[in-house]
Amino acid sequence: MNVLVVNAGSSTLKYQLMDTKTGEILAKGSCERVGFSGGTFTHTAQGSPKVTDKVEFPDHKRAIEVVLADLEEHQVAIDGIGHRIVQGGWYFGDSALVDEDILAKIREVAPLAPLHNNPEADVIEYCLSSYPDLPNVTVFDTAFHFNMPEVARTYALPREVCDRLHIRKYGAHGTSYRFISRALAEMKHGAAERVVVCHIGSGASLAAIEHGACVDTTMGLTPLDGVMMGTRCGSIDPATVIYLQREGGYTFDEIDDMMNRQSGLLAVSGTTNDVRDIEEGVAAGDPNCTLAFDMFIYKIAAKVAEMACAMGGMDTLVFTAGIGEHAPALRAGVCDRLTWAGVELDHARNALRADGAWKLSRPDSPVAVYVIPTDEERMIADDVERIVSQSV
Amino acid sequence: MNVLVVNAGSSTLKYQLMDTKTGEILAKGSCERVGFSGGTFTHTAQGSPKVTDKVEFPDHKRAIEVVLADLEEHQVAIDGIGHRIVQGGWYFGDSALVDEDILAKIREVAPLAPLHNNPEADVIEYCLSSYPDLPNVTVFDTAFHFNMPEVARTYALPREVCDRLHIRKYGAHGTSYRFISRALAEMKHGAAERVVVCHIGSGASLAAIEHGACVDTTMGLTPLDGVMMGTRCGSIDPATVIYLQREGGYTFDEIDDMMNRQSGLLAVSGTTNDVRDIEEGVAAGDPNCTLAFDMFIYKIAAKVAEMACAMGGMDTLVFTAGIGEHAPALRAGVCDRLTWAGVELDHARNALRADGAWKLSRPDSPVAVYVIPTDEERMIADDVERIVSQSV
Repeated sequence: MNVLVVNAGSSTLKYQLMDTKTGEILAKGSCERVGFSGGTFTHTAQGSPKVTDKVEFPDHKRAIEVVLADLEEHQVAIDGIGHRIVQGGWYFGDSALVDEDILAKIREVAPLAPLHNNPEADVIEYCLSSYPDLPNVTVFDTAFHFNMPEVARTYALPREVCDRLHIRKYGAHGTSYRFISRALAEMKHGAAERVVVCHIGSGASLAAIEHGACVDTTMGLTPLDGVMMGTRCGSIDPATVIYLQREGGYTFDEIDDMMNRQSGLLAVSGTTNDVRDIEEGVAAGDPNCTLAFDMFIYKIAAKVAEMACAMGGMDTLVFTAGIGEHAPALRAGVCDRLTWAGVELDHARNALRADGAWKLSRPDSPVAVYVIPTDEERMIADDVERIVSQSV
Repeated sequence: MNVLVVNAGSSTLKYQLMDTKTGEILAKGSCERVGFSGGTFTHTAQGSPKVTDKVEFPDHKRAIEVVLADLEEHQVAIDGIGHRIVQGGWYFGDSALVDEDILAKIREVAPLAPLHNNPEADVIEYCLSSYPDLPNVTVFDTAFHFNMPEVARTYALPREVCDRLHIRKYGAHGTSYRFISRALAEMKHGAAERVVVCHIGSGASLAAIEHGACVDTTMGLTPLDGVMMGTRCGSIDPATVIYLQREGGYTFDEIDDMMNRQSGLLAVSGTTNDVRDIEEGVAAGDPNCTLAFDMFIYKIAAKVAEMACAMGGMDTLVFTAGIGEHAPALRAGVCDRLTWAGVELDHARNALRADGAWKLSRPDSPVAVYVIPTDEERMIADDVERIVSQSV
């Protein structure tokens, strides 16, 4: 099945066309600066050279229109479309074949992810009306966490407020966690039992996965919570927001922007949110970069311990996503803080670079440590095939 | 030395007069409804029967005036006064003999604890002017955490904002942690190495104490952070505050009040913030009380793991304060979630009730578990003696 995987961000639209049988990528590209002037369209299909054109994208509907026209031009067959949806809210515990009702629900939960759900719904609307014969499947980043135990997902705020405003822990990166969980089961020729996955990219979260099911995760109502990230502060005393208003005179919107876009590694290093630059700073003896790197490691290790506790211990620790896969010093820092919890890293193996997954722990380590490259697009494409075959 | 220990809350003033040599309490009592009408004064001295009188306390100065007059009437000698100060802010890493400069600093850091520091400063001011010959010593609840490692105390918010508004992790219950740390060192005839202390009362926090020094703690800029508490929500996604305003229309003050006074065990149980009532609800099969109790245990256990991680593991786990000392089912729940971390509880010993400290773990448990009754007043009185003798 040839599945077009669409990922609409607040001002971008990325896509991949994948043959689910072979895993081959038949086309891919991205629309940048959607909703702004000066847009660009980068694309390649059927082995053609990658090209970047200037294209204006007043909105996401125009972006998906351009993508689909380009694919038609290259005569690539499409059997179905998979849409990555950031927030499934209080409705979706699994991927779903889109109809009007599902589209309405995606818009209904948009207050939980205002920058993402509405553009994503716009893209779906265009696909439904322009290609009515193609199945559209939505794959929710929160679905994996939907049935988390009540003890982990409940906020200790007034019940009436939580019920009315749908406040709970939703988490994120669920599609990545599902991919890792499946990959791990295949590698071990059976289900891993108590796994902590560190999905560390510019957004970063951890999940506790017991027998394939999510038991807890570090992101909360929104993707701000948990470990510090590139530009997000992660968990801090929630009263800090009140204090920033009272003592600093900031508005809600200013504090929201500060916590999400001006904090994290960027704020502590004072210069960059890129871990590679921070590692260079550490090597050059920059104290701010050193503190940023140390804090990042400290907070990830603490959250590994917390996730392990949710399962009564762990037997497997996985690093994935941009930083998790490519920052051996970070992995070493995290693992060396967890020797008391049974993590014994083989530092030589940790320093390896590989295309696929590999094991980094010593043979006698009570906790097995892996790097497993994540592939959310693959998971989405496979979901489209699964949901379409179920609905026939 | 006879030390009067004064603890001024937002609408109360409690006191104890202690002989530091014998630990005997020569007088004690409390002023209630300070700043409101309908006040009461409960007091006993030199073994007299405890009496409650109706006394109006328009402010804290009047309260301390009534207390000191009562002590004079009973002819109890006072050699010094120890003041519990909730927030020492960015100034105080140890207790201090009060002078004008120190008093000004206590007022300067009051925005971090607006309900407490100003009443406390008022009380000090009265003592200084009315009893100029008595030494007054301030004992700060944050001092123990003052020199926490940078990696633990820094918030990943913009550096300029943190510097200007003095945003960092301050913690609380430091006087209790110092008492426990000292008691543990005496019990073990030497310093314990890596200790996690759970101070669980209506306010609740944990600390990681390595060789007697604070390495990390769960309360943050304010006492809202960390585990859930009687009426406080503890750690939640800080973006929840923004969401409550946007979607719920609440003001900063309403959200502040909600998170501090309407959340925690009270919110989840729907009926009570008292752990004894919640345990009765659990026994009666009430699902909300059961969830509240389970969440409380879950969150404390998770934070024990996080604190252990801060020290690269733990060898000692201590429960203290009202709930920590008197709720065996809670202790059992927490410890049973930590067997993977080396905690092996002796359930029979856990069920004991004792006046002093006792050990609850099995003889072969890698982590020793204790209940140690805390005594902040004793610590404050001893601090007064120490500081006064240093300043002679």
